[in-house]
Amino acid sequence: MNKIMECVPNFSEGRDKQKIEQMAECFRAKENVKLLDYSSDSDHNRSVITVVGEPEALKAAVIEAIGKAVELIDMTKHSGQHPRMGAVDVVPFIPIKGVTVEDAIALSKEVAETVALKYNLPVFLYEKSASAPNRENLANIRKGEFEGMTEKIKQPEWTPDFGPTERHATAGAVAIGARMPLVAYNVNLGTDNLEIATAIAKKVRFIGGGLRFCKGMGVALEERGITQVSMNLTDYTKTAIYRAHEMVRMEAQRYGVPVVGGEVIGLVPMEALVDAAAYYLGLENFSMNQVLEAKLME
Amino acid sequence: MNKIMECVPNFSEGRDKQKIEQMAECFRAKENVKLLDYSSDSDHNRSVITVVGEPEALKAAVIEAIGKAVELIDMTKHSGQHPRMGAVDVVPFIPIKGVTVEDAIALSKEVAETVALKYNLPVFLYEKSASAPNRENLANIRKGEFEGMTEKIKQPEWTPDFGPTERHATAGAVAIGARMPLVAYNVNLGTDNLEIATAIAKKVRFIGGGLRFCKGMGVALEERGITQVSMNLTDYTKTAIYRAHEMVRMEAQRYGVPVVGGEVIGLVPMEALVDAAAYYLGLENFSMNQVLEAKLME
Repeated sequence: MNKIMECVPNFSEGRDKQKIEQMAECFRAKENVKLLDYSSDSDHNRSVITVVGEPEALKAAVIEAIGKAVELIDMTKHSGQHPRMGAVDVVPFIPIKGVTVEDAIALSKEVAETVALKYNLPVFLYEKSASAPNRENLANIRKGEFEGMTEKIKQPEWTPDFGPTERHATAGAVAIGARMPLVAYNVNLGTDNLEIATAIAKKVRFIGGGLRFCKGMGVALEERGITQVSMNLTDYTKTAIYRAHEMVRMEAQRYGVPVVGGEVIGLVPMEALVDAAAYYLGLENFSMNQVLEAKLME
Repeated sequence: MNKIMECVPNFSEGRDKQKIEQMAECFRAKENVKLLDYSSDSDHNRSVITVVGEPEALKAAVIEAIGKAVELIDMTKHSGQHPRMGAVDVVPFIPIKGVTVEDAIALSKEVAETVALKYNLPVFLYEKSASAPNRENLANIRKGEFEGMTEKIKQPEWTPDFGPTERHATAGAVAIGARMPLVAYNVNLGTDNLEIATAIAKKVRFIGGGLRFCKGMGVALEERGITQVSMNLTDYTKTAIYRAHEMVRMEAQRYGVPVVGGEVIGLVPMEALVDAAAYYLGLENFSMNQVLEAKLME
């Protein structure tokens, strides 16, 4: 595979193993498509599938899986802790290798147009694919959830980008779009004072005046008696992991609180870590082409 | 490719492009073999080919290339700055993925046995494949070079591990063995005093009482008016890059000299850099399976 796109569709079914398997099955044994991971949460009643593939092959598989979810999931009977507006709640496309964010936007629009027509599904384009600034943020689109979508969708401001101006009776609506790979990075603090972790998170994150591609919040790790600054880096090529790390450390100093560890949740692109290594080791003129595995994948 | 072995054969021809191409050709368009890089140095009169592959496919291609070099290169007419004892001077096998150093040792012995028989070539096993401690170090085996090999090879101590107890008339002898991936890592110092760089190198390297898998020396970067501690890390899984970096920094402090940069020369395994990132970012329980590209290569 010379061109690799990732897709992480979120399905509103996290309890019925048989149904989850049927959706995952759409990504198995397909040429140039690779199912990397899928996980379900029964409290959230939601499953997240991580799949990569050559763009055209991936597109076909994603369209098939959306159809399968529309067929299997009845949102009128769905309950769970996680906010959701449809059987397929959100479908992000993420450029990984040999493809640009523009390619991901184009692909997301093709999928949106096809599934709208094929399954009579209202589709909102979000993130980098959004048709208006207030549609960039998924939370804005999803506000009101499945139950509120009947009325919301009729407002001129919330006309879907593709498909009917009417909620799908059982499948609701779906958000499809392109985004950069997301890095979930948490820094652990040697204090059980959640206020400190929260105060630091507010300074480091974008909305508080911090780093452009950083979301963050304070979290208590009660069993360990510590706290953490839990961050989502939404574009690691511009807001580097090491910069987020050093900024948390810097802010923690004013409270006399040490950084005691950290964690990356889920998958992280190799380049995000290599960049951190290159920073700390002071590497000059380092190129990703010097990474053996990157050469292997060429 | 689920199992990946690397091979970096060194050929004693760095000037005749046509001959170099014929040797490189042995690694092209072969199923499950990938030619990553080759470079020639006319002063050294030597070419280094970097190739990876599934072990059996790689083995066949390496045997073919050794045969081609024996056919094309006449060592009685060879001169160059780099020490050498044969048309194919040295053939290291390096475990990369899904294979162990034991697999690399076994593969090196199979290649050694085959080429000894097929091309009537005396072969010394070296590094991890060595049959005696004084054969681990290539420099020991190669001492005397092609010209001295006629006599050396007749000494009981230097009986080849495979092949005739006689120098090949035009191709000399070859060293074949297994080694870990080598990381060439240099740390730049903010001083033009070569004595300081050399003193630091001596403390950090193994033979001076330093890190077990570290070779090192001081080097002047005259154009930039700085010096560097130039290191070879011969097993990055045990002597980590970050540890070498921090030890150089620590020793530099006693001279009041800052670390001003660094560089990795050539290829480096992803894991060596990810390990450095995990150290500096303080990642807990991080697994290589969380690296997207590692998942892709599974």
